[in-house]
Amino acid sequence: MSDDDGGFPTDYEIAKSAEKEHITDVLDSWGIGSEDLELFGDYKAKLSHDAVTRLRDNAENKEGNLILVTGMTPTPMGEGKTVTTVGLGQTLNHVGEDAMIAIREPSLGPVFGVKGGAAGGGYSQVLPMEDINLHFTGDLHALTSAHNLISAMLDAKISQSDEFDLDVNDVSWPRSMDMNDRALRNMVVGLGESGGTPREDRFLLTAASELMAVLCLAEDLGDLKERVARIIVAYEKDGGVITVDDLDATGPVTMLLKDAIKPNLVQTIEGTPAFVHGGPFANIAHGTNSLIADKTAFGMGDYLVTEAGFGSDLGAEKFMNIVCRLGDMTPNAVVLVSTVRALKYHGMGMWPADLDAVTEAGVEELEAGFENLDKHVANLQKFGVPVVVALNRFPDDSDEEVQAVLDHCREDLGVRIAESNVFAEGSEGGVDLAEHVIEAADEADEDDFDHLYPDEASIKEKIETVATEVYGAESVNYVGSAEDDIARMEELGFGDMPVCLSKTFHSLSDDASKKGAPSGWELDVRELYPSAGAGFLVVLTGDVLDMPGLPAEPAAAGMDIDEDGNISGLF
Amino acid sequence: MSDDDGGFPTDYEIAKSAEKEHITDVLDSWGIGSEDLELFGDYKAKLSHDAVTRLRDNAENKEGNLILVTGMTPTPMGEGKTVTTVGLGQTLNHVGEDAMIAIREPSLGPVFGVKGGAAGGGYSQVLPMEDINLHFTGDLHALTSAHNLISAMLDAKISQSDEFDLDVNDVSWPRSMDMNDRALRNMVVGLGESGGTPREDRFLLTAASELMAVLCLAEDLGDLKERVARIIVAYEKDGGVITVDDLDATGPVTMLLKDAIKPNLVQTIEGTPAFVHGGPFANIAHGTNSLIADKTAFGMGDYLVTEAGFGSDLGAEKFMNIVCRLGDMTPNAVVLVSTVRALKYHGMGMWPADLDAVTEAGVEELEAGFENLDKHVANLQKFGVPVVVALNRFPDDSDEEVQAVLDHCREDLGVRIAESNVFAEGSEGGVDLAEHVIEAADEADEDDFDHLYPDEASIKEKIETVATEVYGAESVNYVGSAEDDIARMEELGFGDMPVCLSKTFHSLSDDASKKGAPSGWELDVRELYPSAGAGFLVVLTGDVLDMPGLPAEPAAAGMDIDEDGNISGLF
Repeated sequence: MSDDDGGFPTDYEIAKSAEKEHITDVLDSWGIGSEDLELFGDYKAKLSHDAVTRLRDNAENKEGNLILVTGMTPTPMGEGKTVTTVGLGQTLNHVGEDAMIAIREPSLGPVFGVKGGAAGGGYSQVLPMEDINLHFTGDLHALTSAHNLISAMLDAKISQSDEFDLDVNDVSWPRSMDMNDRALRNMVVGLGESGGTPREDRFLLTAASELMAVLCLAEDLGDLKERVARIIVAYEKDGGVITVDDLDATGPVTMLLKDAIKPNLVQTIEGTPAFVHGGPFANIAHGTNSLIADKTAFGMGDYLVTEAGFGSDLGAEKFMNIVCRLGDMTPNAVVLVSTVRALKYHGMGMWPADLDAVTEAGVEELEAGFENLDKHVANLQKFGVPVVVALNRFPDDSDEEVQAVLDHCREDLGVRIAESNVFAEGSEGGVDLAEHVIEAADEADEDDFDHLYPDEASIKEKIETVATEVYGAESVNYVGSAEDDIARMEELGFGDMPVCLSKTFHSLSDDASKKGAPSGWELDVRELYPSAGAGFLVVLTGDVLDMPGLPAEPAAAGMDIDEDGNISGLF
Repeated sequence: MSDDDGGFPTDYEIAKSAEKEHITDVLDSWGIGSEDLELFGDYKAKLSHDAVTRLRDNAENKEGNLILVTGMTPTPMGEGKTVTTVGLGQTLNHVGEDAMIAIREPSLGPVFGVKGGAAGGGYSQVLPMEDINLHFTGDLHALTSAHNLISAMLDAKISQSDEFDLDVNDVSWPRSMDMNDRALRNMVVGLGESGGTPREDRFLLTAASELMAVLCLAEDLGDLKERVARIIVAYEKDGGVITVDDLDATGPVTMLLKDAIKPNLVQTIEGTPAFVHGGPFANIAHGTNSLIADKTAFGMGDYLVTEAGFGSDLGAEKFMNIVCRLGDMTPNAVVLVSTVRALKYHGMGMWPADLDAVTEAGVEELEAGFENLDKHVANLQKFGVPVVVALNRFPDDSDEEVQAVLDHCREDLGVRIAESNVFAEGSEGGVDLAEHVIEAADEADEDDFDHLYPDEASIKEKIETVATEVYGAESVNYVGSAEDDIARMEELGFGDMPVCLSKTFHSLSDDASKKGAPSGWELDVRELYPSAGAGFLVVLTGDVLDMPGLPAEPAAAGMDIDEDGNISGLF
C-alpha cells in the first residue's frame, strides 16, 4: 500500500520516525496504572487479570458506542480496513471523544507470504509495527504450542494406550503452525518403527485453530478452561465424541494460554490506545479480535472502533450473528470501507485482477461496481444498525470518480458517506468520517439491533437465512455429508448454536471469480462440524484454505535486517 | 525432585512463597540501568544490544573466573546439576564474591513429557520458574518460527521453481517443533493435489535445530546473520550445497531472531542475577547456553557459574573442545556433580532403573559405582582445569555413605570434594563447595588449559581423541556412510572444524545399558554432517533421538491451572 505511492514514505519509515511514548504514559490518562500492566519492552503491554476485571466492571455502568468497521468484497489491492479502523479511532480522539481501538493480531504466515503486515499503514498504524507483525507478545506462539500439545497427547493415546476405540480416519484435530507452508496441507504421520500409529494428518494455520476462536470468545480464564475442555478432537467408532478433557489436556492447555488471554495494548501513531488481541479467520471462525478486549475497552473509553475480517458477508455477519449474540453486545454504527479501485474492479468483473487496467478504467466501470457496494450496505442495514460508508481515498482517484461515489450513496442509497484520507493525513484526514460516525451512533436505537435468526431456528433455517439474505443465493443444496452432519449435530445437542459459514471471501457468492453482486445461484453446503469449544457450528461450502502456501518468491525473500537491527522489506 | 520428599514443599510452592524483587532493582547494583533492559513483566528482561556491547567491553579489562558445572553419567533420578549451578552462584555471592549464573532455557517438550521443569529446584532455583518453564521470553518460539520459515521457503522452491537441481532424498533441513511428538518423527509431506512435491520429512525438537546452536555461538546480530546464511539445507544432484542464503531466507530468518539473540536475565530465589539464554542439545549440538550470555556476564561479576548438559563426556567435552575454542574462553574450575544414589545406580549396573532398589542398597554398591565418578574426574583433568566434586546430598543418604564418597575423592583420587545442601538450604548449604571452588580457581593456571586436539588434526584424529581419551573406547570403526561423509566434509573445506559427537548420555560408552566405566569396546561412527552455521561437524554414533515422544500419561496430564491462574503439577 505504500512502496508504489511515488515519494510517499513506506509504512516502516513512517513508523520508525514516529515518536512513541512509553506505554504506561499513553495509558495513564485512561485509568490504567503501571501496576495494571505487564510490560513487553517500553511500547507493548498486557493488561493484568485484575485490571481487566476492574475495567469491565466500570463498563457495566456506561453507555459505550461500539463501532464496527467492515468492507466491500475484498480485492487483491487492499481496501484499507485496518487503516480506516485505526484512523477513525485516532480521529474520534482528535475531535474530542474518548475512543479506543481493537484489532486482530497479525499472523506470521501472511506476513511472509503475499499479504505483508497487518498493523494499518501510513499515518494510521499501530506501533511498533515490526514487533506487532512478528512475534508481538507471543500469543500466536502460545496458541500454536497449546494446539500441538493436544495433538501430541492425542497421538500418544492412539499409539500408547487402548483407552479409546478411536477411528484414526475420524480424527478432527489437525496440527497447527503459524507459517504458510503448502507441504503441510496433507501428510502421513506416525511412520517408521518408533513413530506410533500411521495416519493421515494436516497442519492448519494457527489463526484457523479452534483454540484461537475459543480464546477470542472466552469471558475469562475460567471460561477459557471450560471451553477448552469441550473441544472435540476425534470420534470413537460408535460415534461418541472424544474431547480435550478426555485426553487430560484441559489443564496444561489452559496453562499454556494463561498469558495469551490477557489483552495486549499498544499505541497508534497519534497515541490512541489500541488493543491488538486475538486473530481468528473469518471463514471457519468468527474473524474478530477477542471479546475480552472489546469488553475491557468500554471501561476505558466511550467509543470502541473494531474491525471484522473480509466483507459484510463474512466478518460482519459473524460479528453480528455470533459475537454480539455470545457476548451480548450491540453495535451502534457500522463503517463500510470502499475504494474507487475496488468499485472499478467489481464493475469490470475481474478474475484474476489486472491492476493496471483498474487504474486506467473510468467512471463507467466504477458505476458498474456499485452493485457490490449496494449489497453490502443492504446486508448491514438488515441488522438494524446505522451504516456509514467510508470512501478510502487513494492518490490515483480522480475528483470525478470520488464525487460519483458520494452522489450514489447520498442520492441513490440515502446512506451516510464520507471521504477518508487517514492513510496520508492521520486524524486530519478523518474528521468528516468521524463526525458522520458520531451522528450515526447518536441516532442509533439499540432496540433496532437484531440478529438475523433466533437460537431456536433449525440448523437449516439458520444456514438458509445467511445464504439468501446476506449472500444473495436463491436457495441452498445439501451435498456430500451435509444432511448426515446436520442430523449428527442435532443428536449431539448442538442444534441451538449459531452457524459459522465458510465461503470464499473473493465474491459475495460461493464462486471466487464472480464479482459485483451475483444473483440466481444456489449455495452448496457440503459439510458441517461443531466448534464445540467456541460455541458455533462450522458450515463448509467450497474448499477451505486453512493453510496457505508460499510462492517461489515470497514476501520474506525481500526482507532484511542489518547488523544494527534495522529492518527493511516489512511493510 | 520435590514431591516425594516427605513434608518438604514443592519447587512451585517454594517459588510462589519467595519474595521477588523487580528485575531492575536486582540488576541496579550490577551496573545495569532500566534503560538497558527490555522488560517482560516485572521479573524477566532482555538486555539491550547497547548494554551487551558495553558489558562485553568492560569484561575485556577483567580477569573473570569461569566455573563450569557438569555431572556424572546421568541417571533417571536426576543428580541436580542445575540446582548445584544455581546454588553455587548464590553461595559465591553469600560468601562475598560477585557471581553471575548462566544456564540454558528449558524446552517445552521435556516439560510436558517426563523430565519436568529445568529451572533448578528447592532453594536453588531461578524465578519465576513457571514462566521460565513455559513460554519465557519467546526465544524457543522465535527459533521454531525461523526454522520453519526456512523449511517453507525450501519446499516452495522445490515445488514452485526449477532453480535448483535438488535431490528430494537429500534434503538435510527438517522441520521443527518445541513439543515432544512421536508421530512427527517420520512422515511424508507434500501430498494431495495442492501440496507441492511429495517427499519424506521429519520434525525435530527445536532445541536440536542448527539455528539453536547458531544462536548460542553467535557473537552478535551481524555474526548471527553470517552463520544463518551458511547453513546447509539440501544438496544438489551434483553434490553442490544449497544454503539458507541460496533460498533468500537469511534476512527474514535473522529478523525473526533479532530479539531471541538478546540475553535474558532473571533472579534466583536469593536474588542472584541469572542469564537463562539458549538451550541446545548436548549430543548433536554443544549443550551450553549462549556465548553472548557468558561474555556479557563477565562485564557484571567476577565469577560466572555455567552448566553443561549431560556428563563430562558430552556437555563438558563439547564446552571445552568447541565452545571455549570458538569463543576463546578458559575455564578456571570445573564442578562435577555426583550423588550417592547415582553412584549406587552405576555400581549396580542398572538398566532400566529400579529406584527402590537403589534406595535400599548400601556402601558396597556405592563403592562399586566409583569407577563412573573416577572416569569423569579423569576426563575433566585432561583439560588442565582444577576439578571440584560436589556431592549433592539427598535426605535418604546416610552419613556413612556420604563419608565413603568424601574419603574416596580425598584419599584415592586426591581431588577436592564438598558436600552440597543447596537444594534444601540455599546458600547456607553451599559454603564448603563455594570455598573449594574459590580455592581451585585461585590456584588455576590458565596456561594449563588446553583443548584435547588442535584445529589442524584430521577429522579421524579428532574423533578418535574424543572416543578413546574421553569415552574410554579401545578404537573407532567407521561404518555406514562415515568414510564417504568424512571425504565429503574435507572436500567442502570443513576439515578444520571441531567435532561434535552424538552418543547416548546414559553411558560413557555407546551402549545405554552399560553403567560404570565400560572398557574394551569399540565406537561405531556411522554418519557425519556439517553444522556449517554453528561451525562444527556432527558425528553420529548410535541413533539420535531428536524428537522425543509422550507416554500415554505424560507429565502434562497432571498439570492444572485454576480460574485465578494458580498452577499445579509443574515442578
